[in-house]
Amino acid sequence: MPSSLTGGVMLIEDMTVKECWQTLVTAGFGRLACASENQPYVTPIHFVVEDDNVYSFSMPGQKLEWMRRNPRVCLELDSVVSRTAWTSVVAFGRYEELPPDWPSEGQRAQQLLQREAMWWQPGAVPATNHVVSQDSLPVYYRIWVDRLSGRRGVPAPAEALGRPRFRPSA
Amino acid sequence: MPSSLTGGVMLIEDMTVKECWQTLVTAGFGRLACASENQPYVTPIHFVVEDDNVYSFSMPGQKLEWMRRNPRVCLELDSVVSRTAWTSVVAFGRYEELPPDWPSEGQRAQQLLQREAMWWQPGAVPATNHVVSQDSLPVYYRIWVDRLSGRRGVPAPAEALGRPRFRPSA
Repeated sequence: MPSSLTGGVMLIEDMTVKECWQTLVTAGFGRLACASENQPYVTPIHFVVEDDNVYSFSMPGQKLEWMRRNPRVCLELDSVVSRTAWTSVVAFGRYEELPPDWPSEGQRAQQLLQREAMWWQPGAVPATNHVVSQDSLPVYYRIWVDRLSGRRGVPAPAEALGRPRFRPSA
Repeated sequence: MPSSLTGGVMLIEDMTVKECWQTLVTAGFGRLACASENQPYVTPIHFVVEDDNVYSFSMPGQKLEWMRRNPRVCLELDSVVSRTAWTSVVAFGRYEELPPDWPSEGQRAQQLLQREAMWWQPGAVPATNHVVSQDSLPVYYRIWVDRLSGRRGVPAPAEALGRPRFRPSA
């Protein structure tokens, strides 16, 4: 990410719901927040999108306990190309645990997730120098997306600079 | 991020608190989760660390409203080099809004944040094609970090593979 100040001016555009879904499908990686007693907790996750649902997995741990207790979650993904060229998508949804025999249903999602499982488990596996092998047992879940929105920043075209809509009071 | 399955085995190590702080100082960018009525909400933020506090800013919007209502927040940052080489740090903390004259105190944090303000504001500025100029008015805040933890994944050395501590039951 560039750290120098560009002084650039940008437009912030709303993304369509279709564009948001396309971003989710392409990204496959984001941050999932859950909450317990109004304390939020956020961790990185891999996910797969199928039929407008988000599928992922977790090893037993705080995240799973909290989502079982309170299914309200928020998934965020972002991509930053430059200070005036970025994308951010936020999905509010509900956690639903999938039954242990879910992977036998032959969905594309589970096939993809099984490939992902077991290499990226921060916050999931009890720590302190464990060896994590491919054959541990993740819990699969689905996120029902209730609300999806996204914004992108784009460099402002020259003609827009003459009529900015945000200025500080004098 | 690599998407092919390496089949690799990794160790997950706890990071020391000092290592976690060093990661925060270096990163300066992460995802902040807040919560209202047990609904979490997560957005990307830029931040600066000074004297073991995290400083950032926000434009008026849902995130700011929620943090004013419930100061419990969670900051997460991660870095993924490969499937078996990654870092993830999670900080639980409390939001504290800084007074409007805070930038006059001459802290290093505010000087750095002022350079960052106004180019990265997803979820903060009312959307739909506004022009965002450098001189809009962000709200600055501090996060008091109550609890900080981090883990890293590292490729397992050959000698560890003979004594894995996680195996499924037969």
